[in-house]
Amino acid sequence: MYRELNLMTLLLTNDEVESLLSMPEMINELEQAYSDLANNQAINRNRSDTGIPRPDIDANYVFKSMEGGYPRRGVYALRISSDIIQWPSQGARQHRKEKLPALPGNRWLGLVLLFSVENGELLAVLPDGIIQRFRVGATNGLGIKMMSRQDSRRVGLIGSGFQAGTQAMAACAVRPIEKISVYSPTEAKRRAFALEWSKRLGIPVTPAASAEEAVAGADIVMCATNSMQPVINADWLEPGMHLSSLKRFEIPVECYRRADRVAVHTRLWEPDMQMMGEENLPDDSLWAQRKAANGIDWLDQPEIGQLTSGKEPGRTSDREITCFMNNVGLGLQFAAAGALILDKARRAELGRELPLEWFTQTVVS
Amino acid sequence: MYRELNLMTLLLTNDEVESLLSMPEMINELEQAYSDLANNQAINRNRSDTGIPRPDIDANYVFKSMEGGYPRRGVYALRISSDIIQWPSQGARQHRKEKLPALPGNRWLGLVLLFSVENGELLAVLPDGIIQRFRVGATNGLGIKMMSRQDSRRVGLIGSGFQAGTQAMAACAVRPIEKISVYSPTEAKRRAFALEWSKRLGIPVTPAASAEEAVAGADIVMCATNSMQPVINADWLEPGMHLSSLKRFEIPVECYRRADRVAVHTRLWEPDMQMMGEENLPDDSLWAQRKAANGIDWLDQPEIGQLTSGKEPGRTSDREITCFMNNVGLGLQFAAAGALILDKARRAELGRELPLEWFTQTVVS
Repeated sequence: MYRELNLMTLLLTNDEVESLLSMPEMINELEQAYSDLANNQAINRNRSDTGIPRPDIDANYVFKSMEGGYPRRGVYALRISSDIIQWPSQGARQHRKEKLPALPGNRWLGLVLLFSVENGELLAVLPDGIIQRFRVGATNGLGIKMMSRQDSRRVGLIGSGFQAGTQAMAACAVRPIEKISVYSPTEAKRRAFALEWSKRLGIPVTPAASAEEAVAGADIVMCATNSMQPVINADWLEPGMHLSSLKRFEIPVECYRRADRVAVHTRLWEPDMQMMGEENLPDDSLWAQRKAANGIDWLDQPEIGQLTSGKEPGRTSDREITCFMNNVGLGLQFAAAGALILDKARRAELGRELPLEWFTQTVVS
Repeated sequence: MYRELNLMTLLLTNDEVESLLSMPEMINELEQAYSDLANNQAINRNRSDTGIPRPDIDANYVFKSMEGGYPRRGVYALRISSDIIQWPSQGARQHRKEKLPALPGNRWLGLVLLFSVENGELLAVLPDGIIQRFRVGATNGLGIKMMSRQDSRRVGLIGSGFQAGTQAMAACAVRPIEKISVYSPTEAKRRAFALEWSKRLGIPVTPAASAEEAVAGADIVMCATNSMQPVINADWLEPGMHLSSLKRFEIPVECYRRADRVAVHTRLWEPDMQMMGEENLPDDSLWAQRKAANGIDWLDQPEIGQLTSGKEPGRTSDREITCFMNNVGLGLQFAAAGALILDKARRAELGRELPLEWFTQTVVS
């Protein structure tokens, strides 16, 4: 068991992670991980967000952590972030939260720590920035693979922010996408996005003048914003469409009601949140309200792993309207991504090696 | 705000931590931290234990994490451990769990990561072995300070394992202890403990032939075992005694019933535990059973912070029998210890400095 021990902890950068990650591989790895989870062969510890008010700068300190074990690949992942977060009001975009680059050099702190299920060692420390985008994209890509029509060729994309690119990448990885129409409120941003991603994906990505225009004629509608308000309209839906979302509020209640089939990422549903000084006792009635939010019983919908493992169908006819809601992240995503990256980094001999001894001890605790 | 930024992350060893920590300081710091908690000026994220069966070696992989924020000192702590754990059966000691030193060099992995509430940076990475003993000892020491008679002079100590020494240290830090009588089942072990700790504490520590002998005449009875069964007997109690425990099962139901006053470390009560492949849904009835275990409603007892902050009395007469139960650890303990150690390490210029840049990124996640 200890024969092939790596006595170093690998430290990687975002550039290295980006050079190693590919969307199709990430989607395949996640498909396996979710199926394992559905078969009780993987595990998650739900995300927790713990906040401390910083009234001096009208912000909060928020520490976020989530964990997941993926024994097939021998890894357990802890993903953490330590942020100063503001919730600035900007008219219609009220409640968009913003992580301040509060660290020296305008940097952020988000890390994935990867441990061995074999012997407990700290295998690697990775920044979470690139992984974050890939795992969110890959998850919605998997939703598309499981739920959209196989002949889906057109994507309507709402949003051109930091998640939108990997969303487009993911759709192209699983369906023969020929055209993407992108809308976001700021014209310059959607134009820049269209230009960049036309090149990167090798298919036409064109800016649309409105969300409605982006959705018109689409086989797949991907919402990739951080809006707390609906960004599409149920009147725009057509038979056979697949809707994809990163946030519960992007898609209005009427869309969920009109969909023939809805799946969620996880029934863990939302993080365990607490803020210093607030009443943080579990409130069952509040919880029940949240579960039933948007007029559908979320916890009655299948999880993505039930689709990947074949326990539930993703779609049963070309006329169905389907909807996948990537409600909250899972530590397991970071375990799957981490395993993939670590393997490739070792083969490519990338990364900085730190003595494992730094992170172990001769004293039992 | 960024003026005094330390651009390095400090890495310390257990030897360095031990050279910096003192029990009286640790008790003082915890007293402040618990009072802050009782006044909503500190916060905890409850410990989670997530397990993956390792049937190949008749063990489990267990990842444990807990968090706490201590804004008075500007720190947030994450404490993690990544262990291979066996539950060997050894007759009466069934269910004693054992962390295997599964890492190269027979080592364990237990770490405290200390973050800045000011800007989010990773301030330090510390091994948890020494801190663990000090914070458990200091917590029971604080229980003694709040609840035992001020003129307590004799300690009866049950257990001579790795927690017992710091328990004795803590009692001596807060009361004018003149004599300690120690019992543990293996004669050689209790003799060795008595020898070592007589020297270290500068007072007589004598081995007792039985638990009853150790308890007889004691003002303070400290249980410091990892037993899942009672190690003392209610018939041995005397008026004015203070009982101290690390584990709910060390002290039998009858003792709790006979005590005039019981306090607990935290009403968080026990970790959130889940094991891959087991039914892990929250079970309210099981929870209720656990809360009321041992025939008393644990969540109706004051927490240590209610005592330190003066919201509840620890003792109101010299005749009362008092009992403090250190039911489960808190992340806040590691924040308090971490703040203390970090300050002293900086002043002493101890530790290895790692570039903070290794643990930050230019990409938002």
